[in-house]
Amino acid sequence: MRTAQEYKESLRKMRPNVYKFGELIEDVTTHPAARRAVEGHAQIFDAAQRGEYRDLLTTISSLSGERVSRYLSVVGSAEDMVANVRMKRLMFNLTGTCTGGRCVGFNAINSMWAATYDMDNELGTDYHARIRGWLVKAQQEDVALAGALTDPKGDRSKRPIEQKDPDMSLRMIAKDADGGIVVKGAKVMIAGAAEANEVFVLPGSGYKDGESDYAISFVIPRDIQGLTVVEARHPSDGRDMESGFDNPVELGGITQGYLLFQDVRVPRERVFMAGEWKYSLKAVLNFIAPYRSAIGGCVAGQGDVMVGAAALMARANGLSEKVFKDKLVQMTVNNETTFGMGVAAAVLGKLHPSGVWIPDAKLANVNKVHVATLPYETKRLAQDIAGGIAETGCLPSSQDINSPLYGDLLQKYLKAGTDGETRAKAARLVEWLTIGEGVPGCMHGGGSPDGAKLMINAAADIEANVRLARRVANLKEVPAPEK
Amino acid sequence: MRTAQEYKESLRKMRPNVYKFGELIEDVTTHPAARRAVEGHAQIFDAAQRGEYRDLLTTISSLSGERVSRYLSVVGSAEDMVANVRMKRLMFNLTGTCTGGRCVGFNAINSMWAATYDMDNELGTDYHARIRGWLVKAQQEDVALAGALTDPKGDRSKRPIEQKDPDMSLRMIAKDADGGIVVKGAKVMIAGAAEANEVFVLPGSGYKDGESDYAISFVIPRDIQGLTVVEARHPSDGRDMESGFDNPVELGGITQGYLLFQDVRVPRERVFMAGEWKYSLKAVLNFIAPYRSAIGGCVAGQGDVMVGAAALMARANGLSEKVFKDKLVQMTVNNETTFGMGVAAAVLGKLHPSGVWIPDAKLANVNKVHVATLPYETKRLAQDIAGGIAETGCLPSSQDINSPLYGDLLQKYLKAGTDGETRAKAARLVEWLTIGEGVPGCMHGGGSPDGAKLMINAAADIEANVRLARRVANLKEVPAPEK
Amino acid sequence: MRTAQEYKESLRKMRPNVYKFGELIEDVTTHPAARRAVEGHAQIFDAAQRGEYRDLLTTISSLSGERVSRYLSVVGSAEDMVANVRMKRLMFNLTGTCTGGRCVGFNAINSMWAATYDMDNELGTDYHARIRGWLVKAQQEDVALAGALTDPKGDRSKRPIEQKDPDMSLRMIAKDADGGIVVKGAKVMIAGAAEANEVFVLPGSGYKDGESDYAISFVIPRDIQGLTVVEARHPSDGRDMESGFDNPVELGGITQGYLLFQDVRVPRERVFMAGEWKYSLKAVLNFIAPYRSAIGGCVAGQGDVMVGAAALMARANGLSEKVFKDKLVQMTVNNETTFGMGVAAAVLGKLHPSGVWIPDAKLANVNKVHVATLPYETKRLAQDIAGGIAETGCLPSSQDINSPLYGDLLQKYLKAGTDGETRAKAARLVEWLTIGEGVPGCMHGGGSPDGAKLMINAAADIEANVRLARRVANLKEVPAPEK
Amino acid sequence: MRTAQEYKESLRKMRPNVYKFGELIEDVTTHPAARRAVEGHAQIFDAAQRGEYRDLLTTISSLSGERVSRYLSVVGSAEDMVANVRMKRLMFNLTGTCTGGRCVGFNAINSMWAATYDMDNELGTDYHARIRGWLVKAQQEDVALAGALTDPKGDRSKRPIEQKDPDMSLRMIAKDADGGIVVKGAKVMIAGAAEANEVFVLPGSGYKDGESDYAISFVIPRDIQGLTVVEARHPSDGRDMESGFDNPVELGGITQGYLLFQDVRVPRERVFMAGEWKYSLKAVLNFIAPYRSAIGGCVAGQGDVMVGAAALMARANGLSEKVFKDKLVQMTVNNETTFGMGVAAAVLGKLHPSGVWIPDAKLANVNKVHVATLPYETKRLAQDIAGGIAETGCLPSSQDINSPLYGDLLQKYLKAGTDGETRAKAARLVEWLTIGEGVPGCMHGGGSPDGAKLMINAAADIEANVRLARRVANLKEVPAPEK
Repeated sequence: MRTAQEYKESLRKMRPNVYKFGELIEDVTTHPAARRAVEGHAQIFDAAQRGEYRDLLTTISSLSGERVSRYLSVVGSAEDMVANVRMKRLMFNLTGTCTGGRCVGFNAINSMWAATYDMDNELGTDYHARIRGWLVKAQQEDVALAGALTDPKGDRSKRPIEQKDPDMSLRMIAKDADGGIVVKGAKVMIAGAAEANEVFVLPGSGYKDGESDYAISFVIPRDIQGLTVVEARHPSDGRDMESGFDNPVELGGITQGYLLFQDVRVPRERVFMAGEWKYSLKAVLNFIAPYRSAIGGCVAGQGDVMVGAAALMARANGLSEKVFKDKLVQMTVNNETTFGMGVAAAVLGKLHPSGVWIPDAKLANVNKVHVATLPYETKRLAQDIAGGIAETGCLPSSQDINSPLYGDLLQKYLKAGTDGETRAKAARLVEWLTIGEGVPGCMHGGGSPDGAKLMINAAADIEANVRLARRVANLKEVPAPEK
Repeated sequence: MRTAQEYKESLRKMRPNVYKFGELIEDVTTHPAARRAVEGHAQIFDAAQRGEYRDLLTTISSLSGERVSRYLSVVGSAEDMVANVRMKRLMFNLTGTCTGGRCVGFNAINSMWAATYDMDNELGTDYHARIRGWLVKAQQEDVALAGALTDPKGDRSKRPIEQKDPDMSLRMIAKDADGGIVVKGAKVMIAGAAEANEVFVLPGSGYKDGESDYAISFVIPRDIQGLTVVEARHPSDGRDMESGFDNPVELGGITQGYLLFQDVRVPRERVFMAGEWKYSLKAVLNFIAPYRSAIGGCVAGQGDVMVGAAALMARANGLSEKVFKDKLVQMTVNNETTFGMGVAAAVLGKLHPSGVWIPDAKLANVNKVHVATLPYETKRLAQDIAGGIAETGCLPSSQDINSPLYGDLLQKYLKAGTDGETRAKAARLVEWLTIGEGVPGCMHGGGSPDGAKLMINAAADIEANVRLARRVANLKEVPAPEK
Repeated sequence: MRTAQEYKESLRKMRPNVYKFGELIEDVTTHPAARRAVEGHAQIFDAAQRGEYRDLLTTISSLSGERVSRYLSVVGSAEDMVANVRMKRLMFNLTGTCTGGRCVGFNAINSMWAATYDMDNELGTDYHARIRGWLVKAQQEDVALAGALTDPKGDRSKRPIEQKDPDMSLRMIAKDADGGIVVKGAKVMIAGAAEANEVFVLPGSGYKDGESDYAISFVIPRDIQGLTVVEARHPSDGRDMESGFDNPVELGGITQGYLLFQDVRVPRERVFMAGEWKYSLKAVLNFIAPYRSAIGGCVAGQGDVMVGAAALMARANGLSEKVFKDKLVQMTVNNETTFGMGVAAAVLGKLHPSGVWIPDAKLANVNKVHVATLPYETKRLAQDIAGGIAETGCLPSSQDINSPLYGDLLQKYLKAGTDGETRAKAARLVEWLTIGEGVPGCMHGGGSPDGAKLMINAAADIEANVRLARRVANLKEVPAPEK
Repeated sequence: MRTAQEYKESLRKMRPNVYKFGELIEDVTTHPAARRAVEGHAQIFDAAQRGEYRDLLTTISSLSGERVSRYLSVVGSAEDMVANVRMKRLMFNLTGTCTGGRCVGFNAINSMWAATYDMDNELGTDYHARIRGWLVKAQQEDVALAGALTDPKGDRSKRPIEQKDPDMSLRMIAKDADGGIVVKGAKVMIAGAAEANEVFVLPGSGYKDGESDYAISFVIPRDIQGLTVVEARHPSDGRDMESGFDNPVELGGITQGYLLFQDVRVPRERVFMAGEWKYSLKAVLNFIAPYRSAIGGCVAGQGDVMVGAAALMARANGLSEKVFKDKLVQMTVNNETTFGMGVAAAVLGKLHPSGVWIPDAKLANVNKVHVATLPYETKRLAQDIAGGIAETGCLPSSQDINSPLYGDLLQKYLKAGTDGETRAKAARLVEWLTIGEGVPGCMHGGGSPDGAKLMINAAADIEANVRLARRVANLKEVPAPEK
C-alpha cells in the first residue's frame, strides 16, 4: 500500500486537466485551490499505516487475500458496512471535512460489483470479470478512486431523451468493434476528482427503453484524453488563494468538479455497462443504500469537530463549556443519531448473491432525511455557543490582525480567554465548519431528501400498518376511495 | 412452553392481591380493569407458538439447551439484543400498546445476571448460582415475569437516607439466619404486575455507603404474603368498566401498579443482592442500556399502528391516505429512528464476562431522548390526519350511538367514507393511541430524558472532540477557566 | 348584566334536550357531565362584575351605548380585537380550559354582521336589520350564546350536493310564507351548547351554485323544538361521574355536542341567510380570521396554567422549578408566540364597511399552524418537568388513596415535597391539562392546519417575492414551466 | 432630505479611516469591499423619495414638524413602532440584506432619548437638551447615522473592571473642563460604520458602582480624529474583489467594523452620558426591546427574498414551485412569525414619559429566540428547494463560465429551465442568501438568544402561573424547597 508521499507523487505525474478560476492547475498538490483537499486525502494513506487506524482503513481483500485499502474493498458483511460508517466518521474527524474523492468511488465499486454480477448471470455478459480484473489491479496499485454519479440533467421536468440537448446526461456516442465505448456529456459536482487517480462512472439514474445510450458505467484515469475538470466554487474559497489563517484548516478541504467529457474513449476492459438500461436503476439503488447509510458517519464526524470547536470557542471567550451543556448534548444527540442510523441500516441489510452487503433501504433513506436536517441544527448550536464573532466569522482578516498599522490594537481587543490570534483562529474554525469552506453538500449529495422520502414512502408498508390497526381494534375493512 | 390458556389459568390460581378503584380484583383474566392487559400478555404465549413469530419470541436457552421464551433468556450477543428490539416492536404491533409485564422482568434478569457474576467474583458470594438456579426453573415453567425498578423516592432533593421517612425506597428491614430477607416499602408504577406470575425486584438507584439496606434485589411470586398491588389509573380508564366500544381495543391494555411491601419475606435462593451497595449502580446501569435500546422498538411498534390507524381514518373520512403522504412519511421516519437507534445501540454493545451482551450506553441514552420526543410528534400527526373527530375523540359514546332514541341519527351523521359505527370505532382507536388508554408512559418509563442527557454528557468525550478541533486548525491549547 | 347565579337559573329553566351516555340531562347546572363546564361559563359572568376584569370582559355597546358583555359585542377596532385575544387568555387562566360556549357565538355575530351588511347592500335584503334587532335584545338579556359551524360533511371527497345523503350538511328544507325557514341536518362538535341559552348557526362552508339550501344562518334558543343535543365524550370523562378528585378541576370543563336538527322551524327575524350561497364563503372567511387570531389567546392561557402546574409539580416532587428553567422558558416562548401572533393578526386587520374589524388572514392562519403544533410541545415539556407520576397520571384513583384498607400506605408513598394527597392532585392537574379532560380540540377546532396552510399559500404572494429576488440579483425572468 | 447622490457625495467628502485586508479604503462608494453596502444604504434615500415607500421611510418630526427620515425620528407610538418593523422588512426586500448602518443608530437615538430624559429629571443634568439639539440638526442634514453597542469585553467570565486590560470595554479616560470627554477602547462588529456619516455610541452593558468610566454615550462623526475602522470579513467576501457575478447582488451588502478609539475627544454637546452608571442598564434595556422587536421585520424581509429565490431556482431547474408548496408555506410561516411577533411586541408596548414608545420586553425577547432559530430552517428549506447546485453554490466561477476554453461547455451543461448563466446566477443568489455574503449576524446581533432567554425568564411570572394552577385545581400552597 502506498504512502501519502507516493500518493502525492502519483498525482504530480498526471496530465494537468483540472481548472479553477479560469486557469489550469499545474500541480494539484501545491496549488492553493486543491492542496488542502489533497492533504485531506493524503491522510487516508497516512492513517492506513498507523496502528490505531489500520484495521478501520484497511481490510483483507476477498480477491487477493492481501491487505488493501478499505476504500477499494468489496463490502462483504454487516461488519464491513459498519466499518465503512466508522471510517467516514474517522476521516471527518481527521480532516474536519469531506474526503469525497474516495467514498463515491468505493460505493461505485460495490454497486457495480452487484449489478455486473446480475447482468452476467442474466444476460451472459462478462462485465463482472472485467470489474474483478480491474479491481485486483487497483487494489495492488492502491489507487485513489473518485466516483461520478450526477448528470447535468437539464430540465428536471423532462427525461434525458426528452431534453432538447441529448447531452444533458452522459451518453455513449459510439461503440468500438472491440467493445470499447466513446462517451460525451458531463458529470457534475464530482467530489475529489482533482485528488483522484481514477474515476468510476455510474449511470446517473434508472433509464428506460430508448435510453440505452445513457446506461453506461466505466472507470477511467482522471487525466484521460478528452476529459476536462473544472472545479466548482465553494463558500469563502477566495481565502484559499490568500496567505494567512482565514482558511484555518490546512489538513483538509473540498473540491467538487464539473467533468466535461469530449468524446472520451474507454477501452473494453474498463467498461462495466454499455446500454443495459434495465440494470441502471438497480445500479443506482445499490449505490444509494450504502451511500445514505455511510453518510451518517460523515455528518457525525464533522459534528464531533463542531462540538470540539464550539467548546474550544467557549473557553476562548473565557467561559467553561459546561455553561452550554444542554446544547453540547443536543449536538451529540444529533451526531449519534446519524451515526447510529447508519449503523442500523448497515446491520439490517442483506447479502447480494455477488457477495456485496446491501444496507437496508428504508433505514438508509430515513438517515438521509436526518442528514439533510440535523446538521443544520448542529451548526446553529455551534454558532450559538461560539458567539457573535464566530457566527459569520465577524472579525478582521488575518492581514489586518497582523497589520503593522493597527494589528496590535486588533489583537488587544480580540483577546479574551486566550490571546487574540488564537481566539481569532478558533472563531474562523467555527465559521469554516458552519458557514465556510468546511461545509460539505450533504443535503443533496447522493440525492435529495425529497427523493429519500419517496423511497421511504415506497418502502413503508402502509397497508400492513392498516392491517395492524384493524386487527387491534377489530375493525372491518375500509376501502380506499376510488379517486 | 405454556399456551395462552395455561398462562391465564396460572393467573386465576394466584391469590387475589390486586386492587383498583378501592376494590379487590378477584380474577384478573376477567375483571374489566385487567383483562385487556392479560389478553395482551397472553398474545406473547400465542405468538411464541406461531411459526411466523416463533424465532423472534423464543430462543434456545444457554442454560438448558431447550427452547424458551425470549423474555426469560440471557441476552448473549448483538443478534440477541437486536431480536429483543424487534420483539418489542412486534408486541406493540400485536397489542397496540405495552406488554410491560414482561420486558422489565426480562431486562432485570440480564442486569442481575451480570451484577451477580461480578459480586460472586469479587466478593465470593453465591448470588450468580442462585439466579441461575431460579432462572432454569422459571424457563421450564415459562413464568410471566414482571420487573420492579422505581421506588417512591419521596423528596427528590434528598437521598434515601436523608428522607424523613426511611421507607421512601424499598429496604431490607431484617436478614434471616438462613440468608432470607424481609423487605418493607414500595415499588411504584410497575407495569404488568397484575399480568405476572412473578416479580423481579431491582435496586432502584445507585446507593452509597450507609445505604446498604436499600441495595437489594430478589424475585418473588406476585401473590406473596405481605404484598398488595394497587393499580394506577390511566387516561380514560373509566371506559374499561363500561360495555360498548369506547375502549376500542380488546387485545391489549396497560396496568401499572403500586406494589406495597408490608414486611415481605424473601427466601435465600431468591435473593440476588442484599446490602452490596457498591454493585447497585452497576445493576441499574446494566438495566438502563438494554432498556433504552429496546424501547426504541416499543415506540416504533406503536407508531406502526398509528400510521395504520391514521391512514384508516383518512379513508373512513372519504379521503385517500395519499393526501397525507408527507405526514405518513414523517411518522415513518420517527418510527424507524427509534427502532434504528435501538438496533444501533444493540450492535455497538459489548459482552460482559458473565455472558450478557450490554448495548452501547451513549446510543441507548440518545435513543431515550428520541423516545421522549418523537412519539409526541407522531401522535400529533396522527391527530392531524385523522381530523377533529379523532383529535380528542370528539364523538358521542357507544351507548349514545346505539341509543334507541337518537342512535340512528348519530350513525347517519357519523358516516363518511364508511358507515358511522366503523368510523366511530376508527376515531376511538386514534384517540386511544394518542390521548387515551393506549398511551404508555414512555417518557419517564425506565428513567427521565433529563437523566438520559446526563448520561450522554458523561459518555460524550468533549475533550477528545476539542483535540480533534485543535488538530484540524492547528490551534494551541485553550485552558478551561478556573471557575 | 346577569350574575352567575342568574345565568345558571336561566339554564335550569330551559327545556332539557341535552343527552350523554344515552340519558337525558335534566339539569345541566348539577349533572356531573355538564356542571363543570357550566361553572366555567359562569365565571364569565362573575368576572364581568369584578373590577379587575370588567374592562376586558365587557364593553360599551355600539348599538345601545350600554355596558354589555364583550362576548355579545361588535368588534369595531384593532383594540377590540386585541381585547378579544386577551379575554380568551384570561378565561383559560380562570377555568384551565375552554369556554367554547361563548367564543364561537361571539365570532358568529361578527362574521354575519359583516355578511348581512354586504347582502343588504348588494341584494336589498333586510338581514342586517334583523341581526341588529336580535343583537340589541341579546345584549340586554345578556344571553349565553354558543355558535355552530361544523357540519357532519360525510364523505370528504365530495361536495354537499354530491353526497348520497343530502343531509350531511345542515340544510333548509322549507321556507315559510312569512320568511321563516325549516332546517334539517346536524352541526357537530359544537362547544358549549349545553351551557348556552341560544345558538348562532353559520353556514359551514363556501357553497356553490345549486347548493343554496345549505347557505343558511340563523340564531335559535338552545332548547327549541326539534333540536336534540348529544354530548361527545372527551378523554377521561368517565371521571366526571365519580366522586373524588380524579377530575381535579371543578371550575371549568368542556362539552362538545352533536346538534341534531329534526325539522326545526326558525322564525323570520332570526334568519340571517337563507339561500344566498354567494355570501357563504365570505361568512366563513369572516369567521376564520378572528377565530384563528383569538385562539392564540386560548392556547397561551392554557399554557400559562401548564407552566404553573409544571412548576408546582416540581415543588411537589421536592425540587425547585429553577432546575427546569430552560423548559419553562420554552413553554413561555410557545405561549407568547400564539398570543403575540393573535395580537399581530388583530392589529394588522382592516375595518369592514359594516363596522366590523377583520384581522389579517395571513397572520391569523399562520397562528393556526402554531396553535396546531406548539401546544403539543408545551404539553410534552409539562410532562417532562412533572415526572412519571404525571405523564399519564400514573397513580391510583382517589378512591384508592382514601381506601380504609391501604389508603394510608398510598399516601405515605406518594408524599414528597408535600403530602401525598396534594401531590396526587397536582399530578392529576398535569394529566388533566396534557392528556385528560382539560385538553381542548385546538388542532382542528375552527378548521384544520392543512386548511390554514392552503390559505397561507393563497395569501403568500410568491410572485412578488420572485420579483424581489430577481431585482436584487438583476436576474431576468424565468418562466414557470407549462405543466 | 437628501438624495442618494447627495448621500454618496457626503461619504466621499469624509476623511478616509476605514480599512480592510490591511489597506485603507480611499472611497467607500467605489471600493469593492464597501460599495455594495453603500448602494444598499443609498436605497434608503432613494426609497424615501418614492411615492410608494415615502410614508414608511419618512415621518413628521415631533421636533420640527418637518418631514424627516424615519431612521432619525423619535418613535412616539405603537404605530410608529409597527412602521419601524415594516421599514426593516422593506429594506431587506430592497437590498436582500441588512442596512445596519441605520437601524442601530435609530434605536440608539430612542434609547438615549428616554435615558437622558430620566437623567435630567432625576439628576438635573442637561443631556436631554443636548440630544435634542443634536437631533434637530441631524434631521435637517439627513445624516446617515450608525450605532455602536458592543464592546470587545475580553474574558466573558469577568466584569469590565476585573479585566486585566481596562480597555476591554470602551471607557472615558478624561473629562474636559467644558464637559467634553476623551475615550479609549473599541466597539466591535459595528454594522455600517463605513456607510455612515456619524456614529451614535451607547454604553455596552449595565455597569455597576466603580465602573462609571464605562457608562458613556455620545455621537461622533465617523471620520473623527483618533478613530480607525477595520472592517470584518464575512463569508465569501473575497468575491467582492473579483469581477463577474459570483457575488450576485450589487444592490446591497454588509460591512461590520471594528472601531478603534485612540483617545478620541468628544465635545460637550455630543455627550449624552458621562459616568452615570445607574442609567446604563436602562439605556441598554431601552435599546434591546425595540431592537428585538424590529429585527423580526429584518428576518422576514430576507425570508421573503429567500422564498422568491427558491421559487425562481425551482423554475430555473425546470420545475414549478408548486412542487414545493409545503416548504414555501413553511418558509412563509417563519417569515410571518418573526414579523408578527415584532408587531405584537410593538403594539403591547408602553409610552415612556419622554415620549418614546418602548415595546413589550417579554414579546421582544421571545421574538429574539425565533430570530435565532427560524431563519436557519428557512435557509435549509431554500437550499432544499433549490437543489445541489445552490446548496453550497456548487458551480464553477463566473470566470470559468465565461472561459474561452470551456465556458461554452459549462453553459451548455448548466442550462435547465433557463439558460446556463441565468441558472448559475440564481444559484449564486441562493448561496448568497443562505451561506454567503448576504447572511447577516442575526443570532448574536443585538445580544445572544441565551441573553434573551434570561430576560424571558425574568419577565415570565412563574409564581402568578402557579397561582392560576392552584386556583383551578383548588390546591394548597406547595413551598419551593429551601435550596
